[in-house]
Parts: sequence; structure tokens; C-alpha cells
Amino acid sequence: MNVVELIRTKRDGGHLDSAQIHALIESYTAGDVPDYQMSAFLMASFLNGMSDDEAVALTDAMLASGERIDLSSVPGIKVDKHSTGGVGDKVSLILAPLVASCGIPVPMISGRGLGHTGGTLDKLESIPGFSTDMDSKAYREQLERIGIVMIGQTEDIAPADRKLYALRDVTGTVEFIPFITASIMSKKLAEGCDALVLDVKFGSGAFKSEEASAIMLAEKLVAIGERFGKKTVAWMTDMSSPLGHAIGNWPEMEESIACLRGKDIPDLMEVTLMLAAEMIVLGGKSETIKSATEIAQRAISSGDAFETLVKLVEAQGGDTSVLHDPESRSDSAVVRVVKAPDEAGPIIEAIDALEIGRACVDLGAGRRNKEDSVDPLAGIYLIKKESDAIGSGEPLFEVRASNEDRIERIIPKVQSAFSYTETPFSVTSRLKNRYAESTWLHPVGNPSV
Amino acid sequence: MNVVELIRTKRDGGHLDSAQIHALIESYTAGDVPDYQMSAFLMASFLNGMSDDEAVALTDAMLASGERIDLSSVPGIKVDKHSTGGVGDKVSLILAPLVASCGIPVPMISGRGLGHTGGTLDKLESIPGFSTDMDSKAYREQLERIGIVMIGQTEDIAPADRKLYALRDVTGTVEFIPFITASIMSKKLAEGCDALVLDVKFGSGAFKSEEASAIMLAEKLVAIGERFGKKTVAWMTDMSSPLGHAIGNWPEMEESIACLRGKDIPDLMEVTLMLAAEMIVLGGKSETIKSATEIAQRAISSGDAFETLVKLVEAQGGDTSVLHDPESRSDSAVVRVVKAPDEAGPIIEAIDALEIGRACVDLGAGRRNKEDSVDPLAGIYLIKKESDAIGSGEPLFEVRASNEDRIERIIPKVQSAFSYTETPFSVTSRLKNRYAESTWLHPVGNPSV
Repeated sequence: MNVVELIRTKRDGGHLDSAQIHALIESYTAGDVPDYQMSAFLMASFLNGMSDDEAVALTDAMLASGERIDLSSVPGIKVDKHSTGGVGDKVSLILAPLVASCGIPVPMISGRGLGHTGGTLDKLESIPGFSTDMDSKAYREQLERIGIVMIGQTEDIAPADRKLYALRDVTGTVEFIPFITASIMSKKLAEGCDALVLDVKFGSGAFKSEEASAIMLAEKLVAIGERFGKKTVAWMTDMSSPLGHAIGNWPEMEESIACLRGKDIPDLMEVTLMLAAEMIVLGGKSETIKSATEIAQRAISSGDAFETLVKLVEAQGGDTSVLHDPESRSDSAVVRVVKAPDEAGPIIEAIDALEIGRACVDLGAGRRNKEDSVDPLAGIYLIKKESDAIGSGEPLFEVRASNEDRIERIIPKVQSAFSYTETPFSVTSRLKNRYAESTWLHPVGNPSV
Repeated sequence: MNVVELIRTKRDGGHLDSAQIHALIESYTAGDVPDYQMSAFLMASFLNGMSDDEAVALTDAMLASGERIDLSSVPGIKVDKHSTGGVGDKVSLILAPLVASCGIPVPMISGRGLGHTGGTLDKLESIPGFSTDMDSKAYREQLERIGIVMIGQTEDIAPADRKLYALRDVTGTVEFIPFITASIMSKKLAEGCDALVLDVKFGSGAFKSEEASAIMLAEKLVAIGERFGKKTVAWMTDMSSPLGHAIGNWPEMEESIACLRGKDIPDLMEVTLMLAAEMIVLGGKSETIKSATEIAQRAISSGDAFETLVKLVEAQGGDTSVLHDPESRSDSAVVRVVKAPDEAGPIIEAIDALEIGRACVDLGAGRRNKEDSVDPLAGIYLIKKESDAIGSGEPLFEVRASNEDRIERIIPKVQSAFSYTETPFSVTSRLKNRYAESTWLHPVGNPSV
């Protein structure tokens, strides 16, 4: 392999074949291709584009760089869900136990929060003792035993992705759909699920804020999933304002516990139930979304969904007492109730998710750098949401943290996330488009997996 | 400075200001910006282009990365010449002593050969004992004393260029005009000349083979020179076939000695006399090209030009006896006279310079890698040139080398460089276009030098 020739081919608008992309990624992972050549390749691909076949080959090469967990010993259709990330996006915390309680094995490998969006691992770890480190053998065994497992990416899964992601981050080559799809799907394909539901967010609180690129991303993710033989459904959902009331690790965990115990938070549960229904259909437990939704609702009202969360937390070393009595944990936080300012009201028009997400990072609920630790108790609780009536001096939101240190400074930022209107209105659905059939990418010959 | 932001700006088609480019190059030279970020920047700039102002700033930043030699203590207008390089391009070897003998100080810092084009330093070093290593103080003193100095790039001149060139070479970002102009001009501006004549080659034996990009390169080089306050003239010359008869280090030196002693090799001397006349005009010794050409011709016929070469070689430690008796050195080479094959004739239509240059590298006259040593005696002597009549079995070319080892294998390659025609024709001029006024780039405010 002549790396400079591969770079030149992309530079000049040409295409690489699967063998060339595999050789490049393999050599890069092994350290034989240096970062400075890979970054030139990344930028040339970013600017000149990659064909669908190149994007598939890249995904496959990144998948092939590490372990592929074999879950065939676990009976049933294993279904996972992945979200591109949003502010207050705690759906996985509710969804995974909910779907698992319906008899569908849910093997979930998640990431940590970086930037203004939170990470599922950080939220789970806000439960004292909960561990997200597990090797693939223990991961498979837990899935077999209790039908649910939620861990972080192991060292052995898609090492090429970890190396490439770090390089993309420092070379301005993050926001390119073939790289994003390869990064997401190489990990999801490695974890051993049979089918996948994707939540592709758009709006200010999402990773891909523009609607057009979210559409493109959703389409490509579905197509890649199908190309690799996984049934894949993607929902594009609105992330302009935070999902639910709570933002922050334990605050979101607490809200998720409440929902699993039957609380209805309309925007959050609308998204959660739709994704749950999709997973139930993919998992073969229902023919239609309608009946699948009823199955999911019954799993909550029966207490099965909550019990599955308890089993999960127990299996992964967490303190289950906080599930039964969440306030015992919340009570140790400093809580500041912030009132609506003079100019507020009469109706909340919007709450900018990006501003709220950034304020939470400033508060210590999120990370600026990978090495940062997080304050599990820190977060914001929206007492009022968009379309709610509000008057000056009425409680608007709470700021919570382990201590007083940073609370004061973030209050103005949170205040500025709110905008107001004179005109009452109804909140519209978060669910935007559904993608389930790949129309743009068809298998050519035998896919390599 | 946020390097990722600078990369993103170029990635998204934006422009950087001079301060940003200076900061980037300064940090890169200091080792604070890693190669992997610089290569992403190079590729983004390559694909999205650089404005004229950015190209000027890049040149200035690379110049500022090292020493700028001050030659103001040397009286007269110092004029240098630079060639983009070609096969058999020995013009500098004749031109520099010739122009210096006309009373114009010639400070020349040259490079080594890499790829199929030869380097002036390698040719000079084929004179036993000749040294091209000199610090800037000795360089200035020799120029003051004898009016001519020919050395290699010192460690202190444009270190950013050395580092960037090595990176461009392995990241597919060599062939981009703003990078090429910055590389050439940062070194030429650092060496202290007042005016500059450029020989921009096109055709198969040139670095930039396409005519259109050679035109662009010539225009931009002139504009950059003028922007930095140096009178600059560029000639675009045809390098489709080797210049003169000799290709290889000592073979070219020997041919240059012959020309300085009065031998007329039409294609070689046409280019040399034109560039000499330009330098003589720029050096203030003549008003017109016509009278300058006569001055140059007289310098050869009087023996002054050759005597200046002798002085140069003496000053730089070389054995002057080989200048007076070149055959004494050539005699130690193995010489194989190769005859025209059966299918040859009746007229030589073309001799492909790229093929000849590559055969010379295979023979050991050039380098594949920077670390390679060269055989000073190795080379090809074209007994017949394009438009000459030739019959099967008549001597066509010689292959010369220090030993027999590689001679046999390159003969077929050299043979294949020749093409033949039935129709007699006259050779056309090598001189194509002249560029002396910048029309596309005007000084904005105070140039930083």
C-alpha cells in the first residue's frame, strides 16, 4: 500500500476500493501509518466526499479493527438503541429496562458526555457503585442472565474508531457524515445486536443541529445498518429545547426512575414510547407500533420495567436503595430555586437547549475535556417548560449541585435560554421523520459481513 | 491561536489573515503545532485554495522562520537566478560565472537533485574538493571578495520550509502553487539578493509539466517577488527534451565548462544568454536585452566568464585543474556508446526528458531518497538531438558511469525515450513566455519586509 497514492486519489476526487480502505485503517490502527498522513486523508475525504461504498468499507474496516462480540448464545432478537445525543436526553435510561422487561434482550454499549450533550454512562454512574466497566464475557453472561446490560466501550471494540475520533477532534474533521456513520455503526455492529433503533436529533441541543444534515445522517445510518444485515429504524427527533425537565446526571436518572414508575412527562415519554415500540416490533414481540406501544405502557404500569432497572443496577454493583428512594440521594444536593425575572411571561416560547447544555457544563455536570470529572448531582430542573404560563417572580427553574461554588455564575446563562411570547400555543410533537428502508444504497455482491 | 479553528476556516473556504498565518507557521516551526494538524491545514488549503494575500503571508512567515542574510555591505545590485528544475538543466553553472564576470554580484543558494531533475549542488560537487557548505558570514565575505558564491541552503534559512517540504512530500500536498511559491521565494528572499530571474520550466522533464500551471506559477512568482520589493523576471522555458547534450552531474559540469570556453550548444546557450541578459539589465549594467546579450557574449569570448568560474571553484576548495582539462576527470568514467536501433530514423522527432531523467536516476546520477549518494560521473550524453538525421547502427548516445554495474539495464529505457519521424523539421525556441509585471497582486499597505 502506498499511502501517499491513496491520499492523492481522495485529493483528486477519486474513489478507493474496499481493499485499499481496509489496508489503510489496518495500518493506521497498527501505528504503521502516522497521524499526519491520516489527517491529510481525512481532510481530503471530508472536502471531496466519500461514495456510499467507501463509507461502507470504512465502517467495515473500523469494525474489523477490533473484537466483534458474538451474542448468538443469547436467545431472542437482541435490539439496541443509539442516540446522536441531546440536552436532557435520558431516553436510554428508561427505554432499555422498559424494552428488556418485555422479553427483548437489550445489549447497550454507550459513551460518555462531551460538550453540551450528556452521556448515558455518566448518568448511570450517578447511581452510587454502578459500574460500566465489563469485559465481553461478563457482558454476554449478564445479558443471558437478566436480559439487559449497559456498559462503556471496551478497549477491544473498534480501536480504529477511538484513534480516529481523537485525530478528527484536533484536525477539524469531525462533522462529516461518512465518518460519523462509520464511528457510530462500527461500535454498534461490534456489540452483537441483531437490530437497531436510532434517535437522530436535530435542533440547537443536538450534535448535528441542521435539519438537512440530520436527515442525511439518519438515511445513511439506516442504509449502513441494512448493508450489514441489521434491521435498522431511525427517528429524527427535535432537540431544540431540553427533553423532559431534568438536565444533569443524577437529575436525569431521578426523572427516568419517576417515568419508569409511571410518571408521564409528555415530551419525554412520547419519544421513549415510540422508540420502545419500534424496538418491540424489531424484537418480534409485536406486529404493529400500536400494539407494541400498549405492551410498553403495560410494562410500566405493571412495575416490570422498573423492576428490570433494579435488576440491572444490582447486577452492575449499584446501590438499589436510591431507586426506591431517589430523594435520599437528591437531598444531599444544594438546590437553588430561581424565579422568573421581571420581563418574563406571560408564556414561555422556547428554552434553548444549547444554552442550557452549556450552562450545565459550566456547572460541572458535563465535561469540557475527556479527563474532566463530573459532579453527579449537578444539573438544572426546569420547573416550567415551553408553552407554560409564567409570571414575574414565580419559580422558573432550579439549579442543583454538590456545593454552592458555581451556582451563582450560571443563573444568568440559564435565564437567557428562556424566551417569551404573548400568544398561547400548543407544543408540537418531537417526532419528526421515520427512516426504515434504505433507498439509496443497495448491497453490491456479498457484503463482507 | 486555536489551530483547529484555523483548519476549520480553510476547510470551510474562508481566509486567514497575515497574523494567523504567521502564528501558525511560527508555532509549527517551534514544534508546538503537530504535523497532524499542519497536514490537515495543508490539505484544506490545497483543496479550497489560498488567496494572493494568504500566499504572500505564507511566504513572509516562512521567510521570518529563519535568518535573513544582509548583503547591503556588498556594493552593486545583487542578482540571482532560480530554476524550477529540468533534465540537463545546467544553466546556473554557466550563467552565474558569466553574469558575475560582467560585474554583477551573484549570490546563489541552490538545492540538491531529487526525482528526475538534477540539482546544482550535486553538479558543482562533481568538481573534486568543491564545497557548498558555508555559513552566512563566509557567504557574504566571498561575495564581497570575488562577486560570486554558490552554496546550499544553510540550517538557518527558512527552517519552516524544510519542515513543511518534508511534510508535503508524504501527505500529497506538494503540487500547490501557493506552497511552491512560498517555498521558492522564502529561500530566495532570505539569501539577500536585490533582483531575481526565474526559469519556470514546463514539459515532461519539468517539475510542473502542464503548461497552464507553469504559466500560473510564473505569474505568481513574479508577483510575490515584486510584493517583497525585489525586481523579478520570469521566463517560461520548454523542458520537453533534455537541455544540451549532457545529463548527469560531471557530464553537465563538463558541458558547462565547454560553453564558458566558447562552445555554442544552441538550445542551451539560447536560454542561458537570455537569462544572462535579463540579469545584466536587472543588475543595471545595460538598458536593453540586446546590448546585455552582447555584453554576455563578450564575457565568454574574452575568457572572463571562464576565469570567474575558476575563481569560484578556487574559493570554494575545488580542484581547478579539472576546469582546464575536463577530460582528465571524464577519462575515469566507463563510457558505453550506444548505436541507434534498426527501427531508428530517419529523423529524431523527440527525446522525452522525463524518460531520460528517470534513466539517469536509475544509473545513479540522481536520488530516489534524500539520503542517497550520487555517482558524480554517471550520466547520458546525447550524441544526436531532436531534428538530427540518424540511421540504424549510427552512434546515438553514450552512457557514462563510475563502473559497469547499472549501464546495461538503463540502455533500453534511454532508447525508448527517442521517437522518430520521416519529416525533417527545425527545432523551435525553448523560450516561451516572459513575465515581468505583476498585474494580479498589488501591495496593500506596507509589506512586512
